[in-house]
Amino acid sequence: MKIGILGFGTVGSGVYEIISNSGNCLMKNLEISKILIRDKNKITLDNMTIEPNELLCDDNIDVIVEVMGGIHPAYEYIMKALKSGKHVVSANKAVVSKYLEEFTQTAKEHNVGFLYEASVGGGIPWLKSIKQVKRIDEISQVYGIFNGTSNFILYNMFEKGYDFNEILKLAQDKGYAESDPSADIDGIDIQRKLTIISSLAFDTVIKEESIPTFGIRHVTKSDINYFKKQNITLKLVATSVKNNNDYCSCVEPVLFTNNTIEANVSENFNIGSLTGSSIGELKFYGQGAGKLPTGNAIVQDIIDIYTEGYQNYPYYFDKKLSLNQNLIKGKYFIRFSNEQSKEVLKDVANDYFKLDSSHAIITNELTIKESQSLFEKLSKSETNLFYARYN
Amino acid sequence: MKIGILGFGTVGSGVYEIISNSGNCLMKNLEISKILIRDKNKITLDNMTIEPNELLCDDNIDVIVEVMGGIHPAYEYIMKALKSGKHVVSANKAVVSKYLEEFTQTAKEHNVGFLYEASVGGGIPWLKSIKQVKRIDEISQVYGIFNGTSNFILYNMFEKGYDFNEILKLAQDKGYAESDPSADIDGIDIQRKLTIISSLAFDTVIKEESIPTFGIRHVTKSDINYFKKQNITLKLVATSVKNNNDYCSCVEPVLFTNNTIEANVSENFNIGSLTGSSIGELKFYGQGAGKLPTGNAIVQDIIDIYTEGYQNYPYYFDKKLSLNQNLIKGKYFIRFSNEQSKEVLKDVANDYFKLDSSHAIITNELTIKESQSLFEKLSKSETNLFYARYN
Repeated sequence: MKIGILGFGTVGSGVYEIISNSGNCLMKNLEISKILIRDKNKITLDNMTIEPNELLCDDNIDVIVEVMGGIHPAYEYIMKALKSGKHVVSANKAVVSKYLEEFTQTAKEHNVGFLYEASVGGGIPWLKSIKQVKRIDEISQVYGIFNGTSNFILYNMFEKGYDFNEILKLAQDKGYAESDPSADIDGIDIQRKLTIISSLAFDTVIKEESIPTFGIRHVTKSDINYFKKQNITLKLVATSVKNNNDYCSCVEPVLFTNNTIEANVSENFNIGSLTGSSIGELKFYGQGAGKLPTGNAIVQDIIDIYTEGYQNYPYYFDKKLSLNQNLIKGKYFIRFSNEQSKEVLKDVANDYFKLDSSHAIITNELTIKESQSLFEKLSKSETNLFYARYN
Repeated sequence: MKIGILGFGTVGSGVYEIISNSGNCLMKNLEISKILIRDKNKITLDNMTIEPNELLCDDNIDVIVEVMGGIHPAYEYIMKALKSGKHVVSANKAVVSKYLEEFTQTAKEHNVGFLYEASVGGGIPWLKSIKQVKRIDEISQVYGIFNGTSNFILYNMFEKGYDFNEILKLAQDKGYAESDPSADIDGIDIQRKLTIISSLAFDTVIKEESIPTFGIRHVTKSDINYFKKQNITLKLVATSVKNNNDYCSCVEPVLFTNNTIEANVSENFNIGSLTGSSIGELKFYGQGAGKLPTGNAIVQDIIDIYTEGYQNYPYYFDKKLSLNQNLIKGKYFIRFSNEQSKEVLKDVANDYFKLDSSHAIITNELTIKESQSLFEKLSKSETNLFYARYN
């Protein structure tokens, strides 16, 4: 089976390395015939080109692997490939999150596969597990840690006492975080992943806009010290819940007691949990990024195409669900700067205390709807507000 | 597709319930046409029988689900079903562990599937994940917590201060442990599961006899109190390691620091870890037993047969590996009664202390070969010896 790869960064070269070097005999059936790169001065292999149509219009290519990132021209290339009867495997959560339904529909019309395991949770067989569970069960909840960079930052703040900016810089120096880190630390990356996860888990189309998202940019050393004293650990978490025909999703910092599995997911690892009607709770843990783990997820998708195994997990996203932001609720830790904000918080505050030079409260139980409205009010006067929900 | 079920205990009735009640449209293709039970006075459904040949000789039945337990006549029924061209799905770790290679070979000769996901880790998609990882990677290590009863006992000793016999009795009253609990607390159940896991992970045939196995029967409240003070947690763990053409397996109590994932696997949950050459470490967590989770694993196998998806994960167990008991090593906690045993331990003891009325040491790093020879010597004079390896 002939493969064309769009993009040859970390993940693209991981795919190349695995297919070239794995001793497994299945690999003999896979041939990387062309690779699209951006810069003609970086051509190092005979089969590299800077001309996308050399891949997209080559009738001999069966599978296009899209690992370019970004929305355009990734969207156009994927659509062109699918429409010309090529299978597509993508690791690009930005474009998959936006166009999952359209890609899936187009693939179905042209009788080819559109697979994207590597777009969420790197090497963890997470999306396929969701599809597998759905063959029998209704899934009522999915949640987890799906961003390695933010987990690396939080883990090192807890374990080694770094403050946020120190460890962010270290992560950037190590190549774990990008020079513009917003997507990772503000939860945008996770929001994209959660649209993919929950669309799959609930058989529907969930849009990024419906997911309230808050990151860890404003977390401080004093927040962390307070959590440590309470034997709780902070993680940046994606959650989606379904109840009958209602759903609710959010991305926000969550506090776990130290004796939970999630609290002990260290360094840049990821974990995903799901709850199914007969299977109960399952958790899947592993490397959520990196050249070989993510490359591995792509090669697994390619093998599923080669063996036609992907046809055993068909998907249509055809359920209609309504957003109901009362489905997720919890107590919140809120840390704020202006004493006047206490007035806004007076009806929900269960416990108030000073945290170094700031103020903090623990709230009563609030729904996402209630907490969102509260944070909107607070944000008018607070610039470094931080909050986290108790699990 | 027509299904015959051999046995209608907890798991058999779980399969029946899932196929009858799941709203998933795939289930409409599955029909339970006959059920074998033992006692004719317990016939409650029209399609129940006490005559095995009514299932095994029925040409209309496509799949036999074997959930009887025990070695005989389960072995004969499975062989008869396979030889007459029926697919077989089994949850019976005792018979699968002993005859995995023969069943697999016979299934291959008759062009049918032999699947046994439910025999290890209940509802966790663990064996299929191993097979999937093996499509690309070499697996160098598998380990985990695969017995819910012993984990329930240890968890409650740690969390609630029970002593061993108290919590064992409670587990028996709740139906979590059998009236003869040896298989669960002496590691026999896990030994069977580890032969299945490591045979799959390493593509070979690993026999129960090659796996040194020690359980938790002799653990005391003072052992647990000592571990708690050290911030470590005790789990009963199965481990297999492969290095080139050597392997080493063992089942023994293992000590994890409290900030690890394993230390926080609570109640009767299971977890399995594997390390693959490109995927790195993956962990899979969930309910390792119970009517619906185990029933779910069986129905997943049936769907894989229905969709022919099982053919995408073929297996032959055809690698030849040698046992090398130097591959696994660690420091040990050893608690013993007779002061004279100190003489046997003097060359390996790194730290000696009194533990209530007993004696305890922490050893230097020992290989499985060394520790086994030591425990054999000690067992001559010690009747309640307890030991655990530091992870």
